[in-house]
Amino acid sequence: MTRVFDAPDQFADTALQGFCAANADRVRAVPHGAVRAAPGARGKVALLVGGGSGHYPAFLGYVGTGFADAAVAGDVFASPSAAWIHGVARAANRGGGVILGFGNYAGDVLNFGSAAERLRAEGIDTRILAVTDDVASAGADDRARRRGVAGDLPVFKIVGAAAEAGLDMDAVMAVAGKANGATVSFGVAFDGCTLPGQGTPLFTVDPGRVGMGLGIHGEPGISTRAMMPAADLARTLLEPLLAERPADHDGRVAVILNGLGRTKYEELFVLWHHLTGMLTEAGLTPVDPEVGEFVTSLDMAGCSLTITWLDDELQGYWRAPADAPAFRKGTVTPPVADDAVEAGAEAESRIAQGSADSQDAGRCVAGLIGHVARALADAEEELGRIDAQAGDGDHGQGMARGSAAAAAAADKAVAGGGGAGTVLSLAGDAWADRAGGTSGALWGVALRAWGQTLGDRDRPLPETVARGAQAAHDAIVRLGGARVGDKTLVDSLVPFVQVLTERVTAGETLGVAWAAAAARATEAADATAQLRPRLGRARPLADRSIGHPDAGAISLALCARVVGANLPE
Amino acid sequence: MTRVFDAPDQFADTALQGFCAANADRVRAVPHGAVRAAPGARGKVALLVGGGSGHYPAFLGYVGTGFADAAVAGDVFASPSAAWIHGVARAANRGGGVILGFGNYAGDVLNFGSAAERLRAEGIDTRILAVTDDVASAGADDRARRRGVAGDLPVFKIVGAAAEAGLDMDAVMAVAGKANGATVSFGVAFDGCTLPGQGTPLFTVDPGRVGMGLGIHGEPGISTRAMMPAADLARTLLEPLLAERPADHDGRVAVILNGLGRTKYEELFVLWHHLTGMLTEAGLTPVDPEVGEFVTSLDMAGCSLTITWLDDELQGYWRAPADAPAFRKGTVTPPVADDAVEAGAEAESRIAQGSADSQDAGRCVAGLIGHVARALADAEEELGRIDAQAGDGDHGQGMARGSAAAAAAADKAVAGGGGAGTVLSLAGDAWADRAGGTSGALWGVALRAWGQTLGDRDRPLPETVARGAQAAHDAIVRLGGARVGDKTLVDSLVPFVQVLTERVTAGETLGVAWAAAAARATEAADATAQLRPRLGRARPLADRSIGHPDAGAISLALCARVVGANLPE
Repeated sequence: MTRVFDAPDQFADTALQGFCAANADRVRAVPHGAVRAAPGARGKVALLVGGGSGHYPAFLGYVGTGFADAAVAGDVFASPSAAWIHGVARAANRGGGVILGFGNYAGDVLNFGSAAERLRAEGIDTRILAVTDDVASAGADDRARRRGVAGDLPVFKIVGAAAEAGLDMDAVMAVAGKANGATVSFGVAFDGCTLPGQGTPLFTVDPGRVGMGLGIHGEPGISTRAMMPAADLARTLLEPLLAERPADHDGRVAVILNGLGRTKYEELFVLWHHLTGMLTEAGLTPVDPEVGEFVTSLDMAGCSLTITWLDDELQGYWRAPADAPAFRKGTVTPPVADDAVEAGAEAESRIAQGSADSQDAGRCVAGLIGHVARALADAEEELGRIDAQAGDGDHGQGMARGSAAAAAAADKAVAGGGGAGTVLSLAGDAWADRAGGTSGALWGVALRAWGQTLGDRDRPLPETVARGAQAAHDAIVRLGGARVGDKTLVDSLVPFVQVLTERVTAGETLGVAWAAAAARATEAADATAQLRPRLGRARPLADRSIGHPDAGAISLALCARVVGANLPE
Repeated sequence: MTRVFDAPDQFADTALQGFCAANADRVRAVPHGAVRAAPGARGKVALLVGGGSGHYPAFLGYVGTGFADAAVAGDVFASPSAAWIHGVARAANRGGGVILGFGNYAGDVLNFGSAAERLRAEGIDTRILAVTDDVASAGADDRARRRGVAGDLPVFKIVGAAAEAGLDMDAVMAVAGKANGATVSFGVAFDGCTLPGQGTPLFTVDPGRVGMGLGIHGEPGISTRAMMPAADLARTLLEPLLAERPADHDGRVAVILNGLGRTKYEELFVLWHHLTGMLTEAGLTPVDPEVGEFVTSLDMAGCSLTITWLDDELQGYWRAPADAPAFRKGTVTPPVADDAVEAGAEAESRIAQGSADSQDAGRCVAGLIGHVARALADAEEELGRIDAQAGDGDHGQGMARGSAAAAAAADKAVAGGGGAGTVLSLAGDAWADRAGGTSGALWGVALRAWGQTLGDRDRPLPETVARGAQAAHDAIVRLGGARVGDKTLVDSLVPFVQVLTERVTAGETLGVAWAAAAARATEAADATAQLRPRLGRARPLADRSIGHPDAGAISLALCARVVGANLPE
């Protein structure tokens, strides 16, 4: 049970501030994250790691020389928003590009992906490193779908060392790909964890049972078995990893025995005692093994075993010196605090000036977003009710919060002289930042793509607006990976874009074309109630949604209608 | 709940082996503990720390350059035996004497004290450092009775640094006294912990409550209060420490915010966020603060705050480099493994050769111990039953186990050519080693003191035997601190020694004198049932013992009768 907090929704942010205060000699606080107090060499590749809070030492404890350049901290078990990631990444950038490292979860994939698009648009070479080490979450033939767990430690450590050594971006990414491909983990759970402010656990394991392969947020495992003696448990952890030993590998391995929170050090040492013999029997030689807490999950009881199959290159980076608040190895030169950390998050508030024509269009766009925000505020409860039938019921709240922030950001951009493109892009950033969650990230990336198509110079023509809609669609599909029929907002977005494009191409006015597109989107949203969705990454709870309309498709159609009703002639 | 183990009674030892295996580059395993793989300079003062297991990183995680030279690990929450401590201390000794550092608990005081006596008898300058930082356990005017909790970290760190700096024993002990006197802690508990193999917790805290000042083994606290927000909890932890701020102190403080196991890092960081402001308000300047897990208690939920009031000297040692498995600070030269670690525990098996006369007497002593062991085996159940009325019911088992080991050791000493003194001393060591607990330590130190009086040269005269009894008594009182009337074995020991000495002095034969003394001891033991004992350190459960005879006094009288009945003419 998590007991020490004030307001539960402030828990992660307060913890971040406390972490930075306690480690003021090593890190510097930036909004929603931390960077090294003594930044790495100018021009080096920067490694930014992150994800939801609640997993300390992941990810803040990894920031330091020879390891990560920065970490971004989301709410407890929730991805940081793309805006947060973007801000911390700018602060971390040393001119050599940024690698965004995170565990492979849908929300993180969306938000880090969205941030990467923004950073690239700003000219920063940005790469994605999604760690996929959890063998319990998908088969070896479907590696890209595996979750990231304690493999974060060796993969990020190795990548951080390669970056510190001065390799260029392509070379560091080659090391990253090899390290992630060589890293496998298997975990067991004895009991679940409790979120701050909650009276009951997020998930549980029956007394006397062990959840095999249970995820660190309670994601489904493989099976449950009766609790067993430590020697048997050690074998249970090791066997699935031995099964993935690469052919002809010489047996040098980084090994991490990781406690998830409540399982104590002495218990891990008992396991390690048994593992040493088993590793030797298997012909493996542990190189600098680590036994302790590296990727936790609040007060979850359980542990995981990670192996990285080393070669000379990986071993060199694994053994290289590092000095972070929660991980030290070898001897590094003591860091000297450097005031030259870049402004980071503040940089994003600069507003590009639009032409007079585009400023007019920007005012129009801001007015439309205001209408959308008011309509979504009115519909908040209804959308929440629809979402609760199949999801976690927070869709209405997220849409209302996101659109309100978008409207305010749009007004601010108009006041600052922004053109239509900037108004829509900044509205999208604000939406993603405040809405949170998957739909927030998708709406953010969609509006930003649309805005970039409009630009800040010309008065938008109907064809430009339609191309913007297509760009928004493409960004959502690229980031979210959903297709029509998955019961997501894509189900209404695709027909909307299709009809809008057809009608505009046929020479109809934007108002007429938009109205037709909105009507088709509404039909498609209603039809999602009939769909039996495919099981997809974008909608893990899909089974429960059969027979109910999809809230994301419904809200998108609503927005389309509101905009259509308020479009100027 | 502690879940990962094989046989529960092997938990601590297996964890020790696992710890040593996982840190093979830094420590070397010795029986019941670990020493640095790269020992400190020859002639340096050695710091040996220890106590019960279950508190990792205390104490094994502290072994390294700039910190402890060695650690000894008892069973879970149980003091290591004097023999274990003695063995590890011999391995740790670099020729400059040994400081035995531990938290101030009755069992540790006895066993470390007993080990110190043996080490001193062997010519090793040995000092005692009992950490007394827990303000909740006794008032500031009764400092010596305070328990040791997370103050172990700063006190041992500072003492380790002073020893590493090359100070001589008196100078290091002066630093130790100052550091311990300047260190205060206050802790809170949210829930108890569970011993390996147990289905229910050792102690609990009611849901929604906070145990204020509750000890890390569940020792009584001050009060319980309703769970409170983090900001209030921070103030609650800090205020009792501020109340003990030394007059005219300039405000430089080492601060440790320590998690007890289940309370997670993020919760500690939330607390730290609030504490930073409060420390500043109070005019305090944290120097290298530490937030994390340093002295845990298995899966106990709770935390503690420790302050060391620094001056220039203490600050220098607090900030000095250190490199231990669980604590690193600054930069130390990477250790080089050194095979020259002394043999340690093996050394104790050398048997001093006795004269022919003394060898005869040694055979007699061994025979008597054999009789005692058989009698105690017969009485095991009865003694356990008596003990269960007032204590934890393990007295019979401990006496049977200890005396059996003593008899075997005595036979071995006889076979090795030992005289009476060596036979009795080694029997005492074996007794303490195998019996465990308080009475085991007392019997061990008593028999050793008696043996040293007998020596290995002369056939023991009745006067020598009586002087040995007096020496045994003195050792027990010195170590245990109990007086007549405390309902301990002292209640029957004192009249035994008194009568034996009187009768021998009056010229009676040893057999007659002994029989009279044994009879008086038996009367005194029976009379303990009538005593209303003073509350003393030696018998914390004293209140429950009113109306019941004391098992320790009973068993001592039994031993006296058995010896009396079997004494040769």
